[in-house]
Amino acid sequence: VKQHNTSPAPEFFEKLAARLGPSGFITDPDRLEPHLLEWRGLWRGQACALVRPLNVEEACFVVEACRDDHVPITPQAGRTGLVGGGVPQGGIALSVERMKSVRSVDALNASLVVEAGITVRTVQDTAEAAGLLFPLSLASEESACIGGVIATNAGGVQVLRYGNMRDLVLGLEVVLPDGQLWSGLKSLRKDNAGYDLKQLFIGAEGTLGLITAASLKLYPRPKTTQTMLVSCANAHLALNVFNAARAWFGETLSAFEYWPQFATELVIRHSKASNPFDHFYPAYILIEVISARNDPALQEECELFLQGMIEKTLLIDALIAQSEVQRQAFWHLREAISEAQSKEGASIKHDVSVPLSNIAEFLEKTQAACSDFHPGLRFCAFGHLGDGNIHFNISQPPEMERARFLDLWPSFSVIVHDCVSAYNGSIAAEHGVGLLKKDELERHTDPVSLNLMRTLKKAFDPQGIFNPGKILF
Amino acid sequence: VKQHNTSPAPEFFEKLAARLGPSGFITDPDRLEPHLLEWRGLWRGQACALVRPLNVEEACFVVEACRDDHVPITPQAGRTGLVGGGVPQGGIALSVERMKSVRSVDALNASLVVEAGITVRTVQDTAEAAGLLFPLSLASEESACIGGVIATNAGGVQVLRYGNMRDLVLGLEVVLPDGQLWSGLKSLRKDNAGYDLKQLFIGAEGTLGLITAASLKLYPRPKTTQTMLVSCANAHLALNVFNAARAWFGETLSAFEYWPQFATELVIRHSKASNPFDHFYPAYILIEVISARNDPALQEECELFLQGMIEKTLLIDALIAQSEVQRQAFWHLREAISEAQSKEGASIKHDVSVPLSNIAEFLEKTQAACSDFHPGLRFCAFGHLGDGNIHFNISQPPEMERARFLDLWPSFSVIVHDCVSAYNGSIAAEHGVGLLKKDELERHTDPVSLNLMRTLKKAFDPQGIFNPGKILF
Repeated sequence: VKQHNTSPAPEFFEKLAARLGPSGFITDPDRLEPHLLEWRGLWRGQACALVRPLNVEEACFVVEACRDDHVPITPQAGRTGLVGGGVPQGGIALSVERMKSVRSVDALNASLVVEAGITVRTVQDTAEAAGLLFPLSLASEESACIGGVIATNAGGVQVLRYGNMRDLVLGLEVVLPDGQLWSGLKSLRKDNAGYDLKQLFIGAEGTLGLITAASLKLYPRPKTTQTMLVSCANAHLALNVFNAARAWFGETLSAFEYWPQFATELVIRHSKASNPFDHFYPAYILIEVISARNDPALQEECELFLQGMIEKTLLIDALIAQSEVQRQAFWHLREAISEAQSKEGASIKHDVSVPLSNIAEFLEKTQAACSDFHPGLRFCAFGHLGDGNIHFNISQPPEMERARFLDLWPSFSVIVHDCVSAYNGSIAAEHGVGLLKKDELERHTDPVSLNLMRTLKKAFDPQGIFNPGKILF
Repeated sequence: VKQHNTSPAPEFFEKLAARLGPSGFITDPDRLEPHLLEWRGLWRGQACALVRPLNVEEACFVVEACRDDHVPITPQAGRTGLVGGGVPQGGIALSVERMKSVRSVDALNASLVVEAGITVRTVQDTAEAAGLLFPLSLASEESACIGGVIATNAGGVQVLRYGNMRDLVLGLEVVLPDGQLWSGLKSLRKDNAGYDLKQLFIGAEGTLGLITAASLKLYPRPKTTQTMLVSCANAHLALNVFNAARAWFGETLSAFEYWPQFATELVIRHSKASNPFDHFYPAYILIEVISARNDPALQEECELFLQGMIEKTLLIDALIAQSEVQRQAFWHLREAISEAQSKEGASIKHDVSVPLSNIAEFLEKTQAACSDFHPGLRFCAFGHLGDGNIHFNISQPPEMERARFLDLWPSFSVIVHDCVSAYNGSIAAEHGVGLLKKDELERHTDPVSLNLMRTLKKAFDPQGIFNPGKILF
């Protein structure tokens, strides 16, 4: 069905060059290169041109031209994704990087409208300047752009309280695969006027159109933050602590991040971190509570909570950050894990989720299944425990060759994802499917769901020109 | 394209009767009647049978039979909707009222799985028994069923804090128009494994399939509630108070309900309510703050907030509920408005939303435009101000005949909805489109959106058998 044209005629190039000019239409291999090579070097794609529209009109022009000549389009924004979703598979790379204006800020409505090429950090700063908070927070926020975090329905460290990116989108503007512009930039909290079309494009990884702008929800700014670093014996007890924290802190519970002893060891070994406790412990949790009220009672509540948890022997040891510097030091132990792992050697990674009630057993059984397959593994299963989201990473055994270990990635994926499915989880929790999990998604998705997804794709992109080779298509 | 079969052959009836039995397949006109007549008597539909499957297998059987014979299906749940979405337009009425089991409750995961025919109240009670909260709260909660509140993406009085029904759904089970069952009952907070198919069915008003079960999010139970009843001079000042309350109370702000003096007069005249203040005031606001923490400071914060608002002359007078009885009395003033309006005479109603920053001007201009068209109107524009959602109701002028007044409904809709569109709002905020707003939706929706909605409908229900005559189809 898909007759992609990966070698467009010279007229196609001339048409785009004439309309977009030298800043908008690029074929120079050196400038194309970073748009072909995945940032960690895991994939290299191919494209005949990089196209960088300056505005919506140019973006529509480009998509229309591609539609007419059946040229595949790979949407790109900040190119910080972790599953190869923006790596072109022929055709053009269509980057929104020049579309980065703040179109409007409405403080009373607690919303703003921004273009897709603006970074998450700039949106955070823009919200702050209006006295409000844009709550999406993730490691790549200085480079990741709004178009990308919407297309991948990004998560991050505040999902527990503010939800995923899907929950922060009020409206979208999208160039559809037929080149028409869909102007869905409403800024309403309630709108049931027909189908909620924006939901189609959020998390679709650019397979249904090019997001060019979004209306986003803002929140009151935090006034009081308390950050706790605690240690416990295992994931099972950590979940008991989570259950208690949710009941104790209610709506103020904002982060509940979990990692094992091995992760702390790696961070201390490979970064300038020092051990916040006198000892090492089997498991660590970072708990953050945030109040947008003037909330002097919150600190004492943290103390009482931790005291109770220690008395019940759910926790071994606990610290409350006494300064912003110490808070940052606690967060560093969590946020430096990925980098420390890469300094320790190769990693095989899985971004998965299971219902909270299954997590402890899932971790135990999955580690056992992996170890049965290959002895001597070092597990680094960490992440957003409060969301049921685990980054199930495995570090290269010290005595094993890097390449030989990485060859096992597909085998481990089968083992891990089979466990995920057995515990009613998702093989793609917050990073998406992209190129990385395409085969595994097909293997783990029931035929009715696969058929619905394909029906949707075919209805909205009958030529299959948008981001071919990604998700399932 | 749509060749609906509204007079199925006897074999069709015999097949359903044989499989579903006398409790499941009903043609007796007396028992059919309440499934044809809208509960307020605004519409009467037609159907050749009422079908009440006991389980998913029976539901699939019925839809398959309808698919084979091109028989239209109107899904029904609690039949409490306000736009005629469940009024059959020929074919069968397919009610989920016998599918009402709680399939599972997972307290640690803060979720439960229930069937579509269970009432909202029963879900609230089930959550409470597990020590948790199901936060959807609306006037019809004792009759409204889960299938219906999902199909209409219901709102209610706690949207400010917990979101609309869409935000409370983790997974769905749906009988598709081709009779296949889609089992999407995941209970995950993060799942980016392909398209988020459940979003298609939420708010689709039964036009894309029959929802048979759902996995729903639960929350920690409230521990401290403070309810304030305040008066102010106009909507413009009320919005200033909202802005201040959001910044002051942060995540605990749960309700911000607004109504005009006329509504208070009606409630006092037609129900047993007494005036909580010594005087009448131009506008009233009910502010509720809820903390899931043990939060003794909240009451003093309410006092300080109200004091500040009165000092700044944003508010005229203010009360804090001193008991649950007084809290109920405050809420009664808000919740009895619709009934009091109906006792006062006929009402022409509009459920609309606009960005908060436009509300005050929208109200002023819309009332002026309506008064220009017809003098002597009594406006009762009230609702969820914090969500930008106004129930823009107009009461029958005392000297005017009921029928003559109601004849003006279409004319007023045009006036009100034109103002809504001019202020970037939605003509269907929380009640949906159904039969009531079908023409107006078409008039107020741009061609690209209309085309996308029709593409979606055609892709998933090519025969157009699901809930024909609703939304746009």
